[in-house]
Amino acid sequence: MERIYFDNAATTALDPAVLDAMLPFLTNKFGNPSSIYSYGRETRMAVEQARKSVAKILNANPAEIFFTSGGTESSNMAIQAAVRDLGCKHIITSPIEHHAVSHTVEHMHHVHDIAVSYVKVLPDGHIDIEDLEKLLAASTEKTLVSLMHANNEIGNILDINAVGELCKLYNAIFHSDTVQTVGHFAIDLRNTLVHFITGAAHKFHGPKGVGIIYINENVRIKPFVHGGSQERNMRAGTENIYGIVGFAKALELATATMETDAAYVGTIKYYMHEQLKKHIPGVGFNGDVLGNSLYTVLSASFPKTEKSEMILFNLDINNICASGGSACTSGAEQGSHVIRAINNNPNQITVRFSFCKHNTKAEVDAVIEKLKALV
Amino acid sequence: MERIYFDNAATTALDPAVLDAMLPFLTNKFGNPSSIYSYGRETRMAVEQARKSVAKILNANPAEIFFTSGGTESSNMAIQAAVRDLGCKHIITSPIEHHAVSHTVEHMHHVHDIAVSYVKVLPDGHIDIEDLEKLLAASTEKTLVSLMHANNEIGNILDINAVGELCKLYNAIFHSDTVQTVGHFAIDLRNTLVHFITGAAHKFHGPKGVGIIYINENVRIKPFVHGGSQERNMRAGTENIYGIVGFAKALELATATMETDAAYVGTIKYYMHEQLKKHIPGVGFNGDVLGNSLYTVLSASFPKTEKSEMILFNLDINNICASGGSACTSGAEQGSHVIRAINNNPNQITVRFSFCKHNTKAEVDAVIEKLKALV
Ligand SMILES: Cc1ncc(COP(=O)(O)O)c(C=O)c1O
Ligand SMILES: Cc1ncc(COP(=O)(O)O)c(C=O)c1O
Repeated sequence: MERIYFDNAATTALDPAVLDAMLPFLTNKFGNPSSIYSYGRETRMAVEQARKSVAKILNANPAEIFFTSGGTESSNMAIQAAVRDLGCKHIITSPIEHHAVSHTVEHMHHVHDIAVSYVKVLPDGHIDIEDLEKLLAASTEKTLVSLMHANNEIGNILDINAVGELCKLYNAIFHSDTVQTVGHFAIDLRNTLVHFITGAAHKFHGPKGVGIIYINENVRIKPFVHGGSQERNMRAGTENIYGIVGFAKALELATATMETDAAYVGTIKYYMHEQLKKHIPGVGFNGDVLGNSLYTVLSASFPKTEKSEMILFNLDINNICASGGSACTSGAEQGSHVIRAINNNPNQITVRFSFCKHNTKAEVDAVIEKLKALV
Repeated sequence: MERIYFDNAATTALDPAVLDAMLPFLTNKFGNPSSIYSYGRETRMAVEQARKSVAKILNANPAEIFFTSGGTESSNMAIQAAVRDLGCKHIITSPIEHHAVSHTVEHMHHVHDIAVSYVKVLPDGHIDIEDLEKLLAASTEKTLVSLMHANNEIGNILDINAVGELCKLYNAIFHSDTVQTVGHFAIDLRNTLVHFITGAAHKFHGPKGVGIIYINENVRIKPFVHGGSQERNMRAGTENIYGIVGFAKALELATATMETDAAYVGTIKYYMHEQLKKHIPGVGFNGDVLGNSLYTVLSASFPKTEKSEMILFNLDINNICASGGSACTSGAEQGSHVIRAINNNPNQITVRFSFCKHNTKAEVDAVIEKLKALV
């Protein structure tokens, strides 16, 4: 059987047109962008062109966009800077953040003695905004709010504007991990009250190993990685030029067809949801599946049986790629902290299916057929 | 005129064979290495294979090699960890380190109140080992010694074993920035008394945006980038698989022909040295040019005149790539802290020529012809 790739929230295939845009920089255009001769200026121009393009799409100022090695580095940078440079002594976050945020926050707590509060999560996986306001109102020290825009495991989307307004009201710094939404949703930073957002190219058919951090022009921070004067002294190290060019190209392509792609991918998700309900007895879903949710992600739960415990393994044998939770911890087989936070039911087996424009209803049908036998 | 690229210490052309090794991972092999299905295992195996290959070449244990986004991140990681996790309260370094080290050390001084001592540099650009011993003997607190293996501007090579012995004697942690020597010299980590070394693929015909840090198995540190469990919990973030595969391939290729390449590139350097002396009145050289020095780097100084002040600009017009100092600060036109440290002569203009196996004596002749007119 042909491979069916239903794990697009973990990573996506590089778009051949993105690779084409990268190739000149992987072959003859190899000059160091920091060099003063024209050969280096050629690559520097490519980097600055990429920055402008990304800024335009996100409706930000090019001076607010910095290239990094990925979404994880970007979140580390934002959280560390909020504590070190912006005086935050208290972090409000949620129990369903990606480890890029949650482990960084824990590190700030353990090593830098920063107080951490966890906002309540409602049973449908949404952040309890009232609880957030309570926490903000009760906070006596400069506060960082770090809440993800969309959850990579259950798909729930945060009302980022509502949170931004609250942060403004309480004079808090707001960081949002937007790794699952950049390249998937229109983002309008000029009209969003957020200080830091992050992105990773490989989530929208761009290359791995490159990301961005948006730093609102009203905040002044120090670098996370110290050294050379790259990225206007904000991120040292010789630039990953092909990665940067690939990031911009992937974002351009994703944006050009975003509406039709989103509508199409959404039909795949809803079709899978419907077919699962129809054919798999006892199936459940995690998060606000049909509500304010990523069109890319569907988190399903199956009643725990000897058979269903082997489900990911058996899907794999059948050449179907899906995951138990976020990719970067699935190796550890620890079970998902996100599912635990919203629904601590030990009698279910969770599988995340996540889609892209290359998936089809025929693939859904094939997966449903297999699941009938496997659950 | 065809471009003459004499700036290989800044960055090198990607070897087409390295690109070939990367391409499968830029096309169909895109699975997330952290996934549990076989499709992800395929990329995980590639990452682990790369690690084994790098470890073998450097005579280290695979568990001591971690992939990062570059040499700069690796040095940040080592220095930060030495302070935070290994209890170092005093750093001994030199005034001729790369900014990846010097700016990180300054940050540790300013933000974490770490004492910093600068070891003396001799007029020939070598570290004064006696002064280092004095500083170590006088140090009353746990000390980190951070001294680069080879200087990227003048080429001087440190006696890394002598420094390692001293650090052992005084129970200091030893980090060496080996970005200019990994891929250029045989490195035998099992028999070198060093705790951390660093490498960047783009300095030896590998891709940009990927590096390594070697962490000696006897030291236990926390990650620099927090998040997912990649790199055995030591460096979070979805792996830059093509970069990692490219790093290993480039190192394999560099190692396979290292002796002949080194001999050949050395003849280019010495030929250029000789021709400069012969044809350019008043030329001088920085560092231990004919002694313990990189075969890749030749730092020349020309008497300051109206004409010579424009030399880099005019070389560029003639399609010759060379740099004033390290690439990552040349944009800033600040003049070199390295040259200042060894020879504070305001009446000279410094140009670094740096070579690789693709350069020829004919290119040297062409550059000398131009220089005759330009100086
Ligand atoms: C929500 C979210 N944040 C952060 C990340 C980390 O991105 P990266 O692994 O590219 O650093 C991911 C994906 O792994 C993610 O889904
Ligand atoms: C000695 C030295 N250290 C560190 C670096 C930084 O490496 P990278 O820019 O790849 O992070 C360089 C090159 O830029 C270098 O020459």
